[in-house]
Amino acid sequence: MGSMSHSDATGIFINETHTSAAIWQYRVEKMLLEGKTQYQTYQICDIPRFGKSLFLDYNIQTSILDEYIFHECMTQPAMTLHPNPKKVVVCGGGEGATLREALYHNTVTEAVMVDIDEELVDMVKVHMPEWHQGAFEDPRTTLLHTDARAWLADHKGANFDVVLSDLPNPHEDGPGQFLFTKEYFQICADAMSEDGVFAMQAGSANENYPACMASCIKTLENMKEVFPYVNGYYGIVSTFFQPWGFVLASKKYDPMALTVEEIAKRHAERGVKNKYYTPRFHQACFTLPEYLLRAVEEQGRLLTDADPFVWDA
Amino acid sequence: MGSMSHSDATGIFINETHTSAAIWQYRVEKMLLEGKTQYQTYQICDIPRFGKSLFLDYNIQTSILDEYIFHECMTQPAMTLHPNPKKVVVCGGGEGATLREALYHNTVTEAVMVDIDEELVDMVKVHMPEWHQGAFEDPRTTLLHTDARAWLADHKGANFDVVLSDLPNPHEDGPGQFLFTKEYFQICADAMSEDGVFAMQAGSANENYPACMASCIKTLENMKEVFPYVNGYYGIVSTFFQPWGFVLASKKYDPMALTVEEIAKRHAERGVKNKYYTPRFHQACFTLPEYLLRAVEEQGRLLTDADPFVWDA
Amino acid sequence: MGSMSHSDATGIFINETHTSAAIWQYRVEKMLLEGKTQYQTYQICDIPRFGKSLFLDYNIQTSILDEYIFHECMTQPAMTLHPNPKKVVVCGGGEGATLREALYHNTVTEAVMVDIDEELVDMVKVHMPEWHQGAFEDPRTTLLHTDARAWLADHKGANFDVVLSDLPNPHEDGPGQFLFTKEYFQICADAMSEDGVFAMQAGSANENYPACMASCIKTLENMKEVFPYVNGYYGIVSTFFQPWGFVLASKKYDPMALTVEEIAKRHAERGVKNKYYTPRFHQACFTLPEYLLRAVEEQGRLLTDADPFVWDA
Amino acid sequence: MGSMSHSDATGIFINETHTSAAIWQYRVEKMLLEGKTQYQTYQICDIPRFGKSLFLDYNIQTSILDEYIFHECMTQPAMTLHPNPKKVVVCGGGEGATLREALYHNTVTEAVMVDIDEELVDMVKVHMPEWHQGAFEDPRTTLLHTDARAWLADHKGANFDVVLSDLPNPHEDGPGQFLFTKEYFQICADAMSEDGVFAMQAGSANENYPACMASCIKTLENMKEVFPYVNGYYGIVSTFFQPWGFVLASKKYDPMALTVEEIAKRHAERGVKNKYYTPRFHQACFTLPEYLLRAVEEQGRLLTDADPFVWDA
Repeated sequence: MGSMSHSDATGIFINETHTSAAIWQYRVEKMLLEGKTQYQTYQICDIPRFGKSLFLDYNIQTSILDEYIFHECMTQPAMTLHPNPKKVVVCGGGEGATLREALYHNTVTEAVMVDIDEELVDMVKVHMPEWHQGAFEDPRTTLLHTDARAWLADHKGANFDVVLSDLPNPHEDGPGQFLFTKEYFQICADAMSEDGVFAMQAGSANENYPACMASCIKTLENMKEVFPYVNGYYGIVSTFFQPWGFVLASKKYDPMALTVEEIAKRHAERGVKNKYYTPRFHQACFTLPEYLLRAVEEQGRLLTDADPFVWDA
Repeated sequence: MGSMSHSDATGIFINETHTSAAIWQYRVEKMLLEGKTQYQTYQICDIPRFGKSLFLDYNIQTSILDEYIFHECMTQPAMTLHPNPKKVVVCGGGEGATLREALYHNTVTEAVMVDIDEELVDMVKVHMPEWHQGAFEDPRTTLLHTDARAWLADHKGANFDVVLSDLPNPHEDGPGQFLFTKEYFQICADAMSEDGVFAMQAGSANENYPACMASCIKTLENMKEVFPYVNGYYGIVSTFFQPWGFVLASKKYDPMALTVEEIAKRHAERGVKNKYYTPRFHQACFTLPEYLLRAVEEQGRLLTDADPFVWDA
Repeated sequence: MGSMSHSDATGIFINETHTSAAIWQYRVEKMLLEGKTQYQTYQICDIPRFGKSLFLDYNIQTSILDEYIFHECMTQPAMTLHPNPKKVVVCGGGEGATLREALYHNTVTEAVMVDIDEELVDMVKVHMPEWHQGAFEDPRTTLLHTDARAWLADHKGANFDVVLSDLPNPHEDGPGQFLFTKEYFQICADAMSEDGVFAMQAGSANENYPACMASCIKTLENMKEVFPYVNGYYGIVSTFFQPWGFVLASKKYDPMALTVEEIAKRHAERGVKNKYYTPRFHQACFTLPEYLLRAVEEQGRLLTDADPFVWDA
Repeated sequence: MGSMSHSDATGIFINETHTSAAIWQYRVEKMLLEGKTQYQTYQICDIPRFGKSLFLDYNIQTSILDEYIFHECMTQPAMTLHPNPKKVVVCGGGEGATLREALYHNTVTEAVMVDIDEELVDMVKVHMPEWHQGAFEDPRTTLLHTDARAWLADHKGANFDVVLSDLPNPHEDGPGQFLFTKEYFQICADAMSEDGVFAMQAGSANENYPACMASCIKTLENMKEVFPYVNGYYGIVSTFFQPWGFVLASKKYDPMALTVEEIAKRHAERGVKNKYYTPRFHQACFTLPEYLLRAVEEQGRLLTDADPFVWDA
């Protein structure tokens, strides 16, 4: 394809719909693998500039270019905030990279990953080693294939220090809806230690579709007695063509009280070397643009099992 | 279109090529105006979620949703940094919104906008009042239609306090190439007062195409004797599907020395009310992600008239 | 657009879905007019190679390149078959070109066009003169804006010589469904003279979606006592990216009995000069490919008001 | 994908550019195989309604739905016209289906297929058995991988009864250009017996891009002393979204003199059972629409090695 022009209309594309505003055609240089599990379809392919990438149900999930940005954001703020994270749960997180990031902290003694899609994770083990980097074989890891919410509900009082909720967006008719509600967040809290930290991926941080993230913030803020500290933050994921939103909820520690020096110290002690969530960048990640603050006020609402968020973007 | 599904493939689209990685199909709800000037084609149309939007040569320029983000970033850091900006030049800036933002500062006594495309600006005056908001009629405004670089070269020693370079990306065979070079930056400097501030739009701030912004930073950093302070910053423009990069170069004042309080004071005194570049958000804007810092090191190069940047994204 | 490459991904497009197999992106060189009536959206635009074109609800209807092919096929076989067509009804036919074709026959004394969409026809009168060519002003023309089926039901016994059914495809939830049924065909027959000829557009004549045309043939063949002669035929419409199907049903005359000489004689006497449906091409038009014959057998079914055809392509 | 809406924008697509008028997005249900040979890229995939399909350089070549139409048109008119075809050459024809069609004639004693792309044919042998159906193993077959024109030039006087030229369109910079010229046609003629028949695929038979087919007709008509009979014909290939053109050139026999009865007799005697090119359909295939006749007059030109056709559609 040496002579392929950048503006050439011809080729293979995976089309993803981004709200009603646009359809994105990702150019596929090479289709590496395609398949279908009980839960979703997947493609692994090479994309120009992004490199090796994974699509689930025709939505891009991750690329080798900047998977570290998503996965550091998903994992490192919560792990860093806890002074001594030993027991960690990853809900979802199929590629194994969230697990990988958690295991970087040498404080960890037990890491449980609960992803319902066994077929997908089996595929990932073989075909996406750049993502998991052996995390599934780490002796501290327990890998389970069951419903994360149900499993957590069964582990009330289990005293997990950190829960990382790396789950699919709450699409209509999908099970994801009940993984973005107050009831689910309470189940997480009940499985956490009294100084536990929770973090979740919360959808787009763009101005044209901030309602999911805004509602996650609003809902967790509604649980002040459980989580006195709730903070939205975001990472710039080129692969997603938008910044991506996360929410951290903490029972005891205030992320805004972390100094650059303290973050650097913890990373150094624990053997963590980040490329995006660096000590000096902590503050910038947690400083939301005004439009997100407005969105929390204007579009955020309490999400419950009875009235969950339905992604219609 | 009441029943239009968000994932409906059917409709009118403007297709924009984003590097070799993707083609973006912006959905057009309503084409409002189309035309062609001596320099470029244009469309004004309604896009779902983005609202009224302008395309030039099939590249989206601005939408009513978040034009304020681009234009505040283009204008406000430089204007705010100068303690008493009286004379301002806007190079390019066809929609009149960069001019509008500069005029918000009541210190301004003279604002010159130099945009070569008279036909486009005439169209904007009539059809894009939400952008210029009367700025062209402001008694402090002088509107010129000539080559900005040549005009600035003719105004050596004119002592402009702020120069805002809101010019098209440097495409192959286009004149934009010579508006992103050390020679051009020197011409700007020569037309500025001894404590002048320069700011420019510098292209994508995404990890997959940071080379233009990185090279602008590198080139301005190469002019330390002229501009002792050079800082990249960015704004999150949903409409562009990526954060957008800018560079500020200052002869005397250090933007990182501005406190939240000082920014708030200046805005209050001058009657400026920002929605994105707020005092508390200044620091976050100027804190570049690690990947941009790496890009400056690894991809940034000195841009000269003999070897300018050629946008091949 | 002088430098536009034919394979350039960039530009304005109208996307039309062609069955589940493909999406077609028609390149818009210039959007000439857009609007919305009570019944449908429309665009008139210039398309490379096709020229001025009309879209309704984002489906291409006609282009200046080959509108004559569709409209001659829609009109000329039926008009030619009748030895002395005086009274003609056009059902639908918004662009006025089917009416125009009928009026070419100097035998016609009365031509009634019944198209429910008055706003569309008013637009056509002004903006599509290349199509109607003054047909609406012909003294023989009566233009009505009401439901064609209801109007025909009110004109039982009106002795029309030719009825031309140029109506939209029978989409789900659309009124078109009841314009492709045995009951509708009976209403047409009842408004026709005892030697009347009926012709209809019947959808795609492609092998991948022949079911609509096949079912129209099957249904009209089921009415042998009314229409002893039923023949499918087709025209090659480049603009539609497929051959298009029609069905002719005749009370008395057999189209296959028409000789080249007789067709030539009738055209000469009546002042008709066709560019596609020429005497020598009559036989080719009416010779259906084997796959269409198979489709009638295998996919054709009786269409009734209770069980109409639903276009799901 | 049971619930996939036909108009869903989401999924995998192969985009093919069809002239400057349109881009076609073929929906890929399943990518079966991808690869690259020395000469071209290929994909085999499942497309809704079309089924298993082959793309070369992102141009659809054939689908299981109607490959028989292309390959019967490519082969059967020429084979049928010759009263006793014994020695046959297929130039190109990678899928092996043109060869298969020729071998259906039990008169054939020797069939040589000359396709330069050995890697592609090796792939076809394994992955496209529905196309070749064992033709490569037929004892009458000789399969060669060399330049077809050069090979034919080396076989002057070889007395082939039929030459079938199933070669790629003459794209810019491609070798195909010199396979659509008078010099090439003369080389073919020189390798044929004195009553030999030649047929070639000649590109689109659509009104918006008939220039290639028109010029092939014009060029072969320019060789009256070699080929007294030259006739264009076409097949309706749904998969190509257009009718496809072919040209037959004959040294001794007139295809228009073939009666339905004679065709039927030859097919019966030789064991040939066609699904598209049936005896009754022969005449329809060879009756070109007026626009193609006009195109020969207005757009057709003599193609030579010095001034070949360059496909710019």
